[in-house]
Amino acid sequence: MVLMVKANITERNRCHIYSVIMVILTLMPSHLAFHLTILWLDITCKLDRLFNTQTVVEDIPYEVRRAQEINHIFGPKGSDDAYDLIFDLHNTTANMGGTLILENSRDDFTIQMCHYIKNALAPEPVPVLLIEHPNLKYATTRSVAKHPVGVEVGPQPQGVVRADILDKMRTIVKHGLDFVHLFNEGKEFPPCTIEVYKIMEKVDYPRNKNDEVIAIIHPNLQDQDWQPVNNGDPLFLTLDGEVIAHQGDCTVYPTFINEAAYYEKKQAFVNTVKMELTAEHIRSSVVDHNTS
Amino acid sequence: MVLMVKANITERNRCHIYSVIMVILTLMPSHLAFHLTILWLDITCKLDRLFNTQTVVEDIPYEVRRAQEINHIFGPKGSDDAYDLIFDLHNTTANMGGTLILENSRDDFTIQMCHYIKNALAPEPVPVLLIEHPNLKYATTRSVAKHPVGVEVGPQPQGVVRADILDKMRTIVKHGLDFVHLFNEGKEFPPCTIEVYKIMEKVDYPRNKNDEVIAIIHPNLQDQDWQPVNNGDPLFLTLDGEVIAHQGDCTVYPTFINEAAYYEKKQAFVNTVKMELTAEHIRSSVVDHNTS
Repeated sequence: MVLMVKANITERNRCHIYSVIMVILTLMPSHLAFHLTILWLDITCKLDRLFNTQTVVEDIPYEVRRAQEINHIFGPKGSDDAYDLIFDLHNTTANMGGTLILENSRDDFTIQMCHYIKNALAPEPVPVLLIEHPNLKYATTRSVAKHPVGVEVGPQPQGVVRADILDKMRTIVKHGLDFVHLFNEGKEFPPCTIEVYKIMEKVDYPRNKNDEVIAIIHPNLQDQDWQPVNNGDPLFLTLDGEVIAHQGDCTVYPTFINEAAYYEKKQAFVNTVKMELTAEHIRSSVVDHNTS
Repeated sequence: MVLMVKANITERNRCHIYSVIMVILTLMPSHLAFHLTILWLDITCKLDRLFNTQTVVEDIPYEVRRAQEINHIFGPKGSDDAYDLIFDLHNTTANMGGTLILENSRDDFTIQMCHYIKNALAPEPVPVLLIEHPNLKYATTRSVAKHPVGVEVGPQPQGVVRADILDKMRTIVKHGLDFVHLFNEGKEFPPCTIEVYKIMEKVDYPRNKNDEVIAIIHPNLQDQDWQPVNNGDPLFLTLDGEVIAHQGDCTVYPTFINEAAYYEKKQAFVNTVKMELTAEHIRSSVVDHNTS
């Protein structure tokens, strides 16, 4: 299911956020929705290549054609014509709460938006995951826009709608749209700093020589997304009852712990480290008084 | 994945539990396992008919052939040759805890086993769901055995293994096998009474004229399996924010609330009522002293 919302479309300007789309996946549980989610994950692996392709080939799989269409409608990726902002809405089986995902540590606009949403929801935590990494960054559907923002809310099983998760997602998007509205009205946002969790490594399940999984997430780690893990802390429990512990001098903050869709990606969780991101002040240089 | 365990195989006698199989579904998360789960649900709809069919037809779907094989190996259903006991292990996205499912209110052996398991795990609750109902009873894989016992543990998302859920399932099965062992050793179990939740009705999601779902489980009901619901208590929340409440003079105890696999079955939850089941004393009439 894809929901598109255009918000505050006014005079076009590079400093003016005029277009927003939101991609909602698996809002309604059904086999189709589940299927679409999986297809979508496939898409994300291929987007970068697809978005660099000008030619449209016939007889290509649905998901590839759909990716090209998305790029055509909301991109092209990297061009001036691309949409300004995409909220890409996901849910996860991991206990990540309401998480924002950033792709670029130097994007003042999205950092300011995260700062605004975090303040609006305080004291409820809104973790921010920064997936900027030379090897681990993946091409996302939302990356066709100039300012992509991922929203990842959990825990929610695949194929299930939970009222609390849906409400949390709505609330985050509402505050995000409020931010866009204020920006478009000409409000100035002073410099700000936010704490983010930067992705450092993906951790696979322990496997035997036949590449079979031999351990599951340790109960002490289950549901403990964003909590510190230090040397010696348990990560996995083998089916024979053996504990496999974290080894490393640095404190890490695992997340995406036990996400259903990532078993096939050989990813039990990702480790992050805490850092701060700073944004310059921002203010729209063009204010359309017709909309204020 | 099918795991077969034969426990305490001694001299055959109708009063002697000599054979146990356990069917474990979706123990390891993978697309195949998910697929198998769905197939299994399909199977359960067809088992009764299949189990009454003597002829094996070629070119039939895998799941139908598999059902016939299960009936051939562990049945035939309803015959003296059928296995004595099957534990049928499932997990659910509903917050049902560790639940036992009975099919027959007059089966002293399984009632005694539930009584034993409940006592062994007290004070942790082990709800017992009785699916004996003229219209709502469904043919289960386990029903090929003389004494079928369902074990339903949740909440666990599809495609995910949680250590706590796996441990709870292991513990329940362990106590069940202990009970079998004691029975086979000749222990007498005096008359007992257990509280069960008897299935009364299946409740669908509210729908519009086009048969589309228009409401989700109300947050006050989510995760509240086995808790009393009275007239006026909220059941659903429409996407417009309207609350749909329970109407009825009797207290009901919903369960299987928001089970992912049941959206397609048009089942948001099932309502149950509390009742008591009583079992006569049981004692194996044949004790093989070689095993004691």
